[in-house]
Amino acid sequence: MELYGYFRSSAAYRVRAALNLKGLDYVSLPVSLLAGDHKGDAYLKLNPQGFVPFLRDDDKAFGQSLAMLEYLEENYPQVPLLPGDSAGRARVRQMAGIIACDIHPLDNLRVLKYLTQTLGVSEEQKTAWYHHWIIEGFTALEALLSDPATGDFCHGDSPTFADLCLVPQVYNARRFNCPLDGFPHILRIVDNCNKLDAFIAALPENQPDAT
Amino acid sequence: MELYGYFRSSAAYRVRAALNLKGLDYVSLPVSLLAGDHKGDAYLKLNPQGFVPFLRDDDKAFGQSLAMLEYLEENYPQVPLLPGDSAGRARVRQMAGIIACDIHPLDNLRVLKYLTQTLGVSEEQKTAWYHHWIIEGFTALEALLSDPATGDFCHGDSPTFADLCLVPQVYNARRFNCPLDGFPHILRIVDNCNKLDAFIAALPENQPDAT
Repeated sequence: MELYGYFRSSAAYRVRAALNLKGLDYVSLPVSLLAGDHKGDAYLKLNPQGFVPFLRDDDKAFGQSLAMLEYLEENYPQVPLLPGDSAGRARVRQMAGIIACDIHPLDNLRVLKYLTQTLGVSEEQKTAWYHHWIIEGFTALEALLSDPATGDFCHGDSPTFADLCLVPQVYNARRFNCPLDGFPHILRIVDNCNKLDAFIAALPENQPDAT
Repeated sequence: MELYGYFRSSAAYRVRAALNLKGLDYVSLPVSLLAGDHKGDAYLKLNPQGFVPFLRDDDKAFGQSLAMLEYLEENYPQVPLLPGDSAGRARVRQMAGIIACDIHPLDNLRVLKYLTQTLGVSEEQKTAWYHHWIIEGFTALEALLSDPATGDFCHGDSPTFADLCLVPQVYNARRFNCPLDGFPHILRIVDNCNKLDAFIAALPENQPDAT
């Protein structure tokens, strides 16, 4: 498998951790978002959205990290990353969706750029925006995590899609000094994830393109 | 089944169409986003995120529309809304993700409110923002739709998750006068969807809370 990514991309980080948890070998192909490689003709031909990550597995090649998690789960069921029961699967996907749909896209590089470059928003306002969506989403997530279905991880005692989305989002939040004291469940779970080799190997600073 | 929704919510619209396509009966429970019902204690107790839609099916109750689509597909496989092959499923989920993660969350009511009320952005700038993310996402989607895997619908000749996300997004784009001339595949597909009873019954104006 080949994974086009960028060391700091939260969405690529999710997929790296999933591949590692499942014990799947892959080649990491860095696409520099800072140098604009994702907007070059060659990359756009591959992925018209110009985003990372982009996954290739034999004749299959596609973008969107949630699509990749579902794909890996269906095709490489060893080390499941979704619970076996329907209620659990819905709960996990709900938590993943809160992060992947309602937090992360708002704090993406392209959006922050639009805020400062097109709307002329100040650095201070940009940071407030960034924190706002994390805190709003994490408040909902923290409430969901007070459910007894939570264990060492977001759901039970092994990592799922929810943890795969949570860890990069917390990494990201810390980089932008977002206060996380109000989220003890989230912090405890992320701490547990970060003890696992699969998550350690997926860390941005452990990628070949890290600067 | 019970679906808490709001007639104009794009995410609720996706799930209404899915339920209709699968021929599943459900009770529609309106939550007025304009009146602030979603921020009331009763609703927040149910769904801490305070968003619609929220689905209840027996003892299962959860938010996030993509989680609902996956749940319905797993539990009510009659009238499949994902292709049977792995490459097709990845393609469909990729297209759904472009809309559900990278267009819709940026143009949500809460985000537009933040832009005008907190950042003091003008109506003109708000509209430009709105159009910008739709056009960016639709440009990628239109490129993907030039693939021979596209048929009468986004993938093949029956509706999938991708169409369920696309139809509400186009409805939304039209409401805000976003120019769509550059997207012939998208327009053709949405036209095909809107001929189906399931999509007609899911239209915002056909909901009990439509005003």
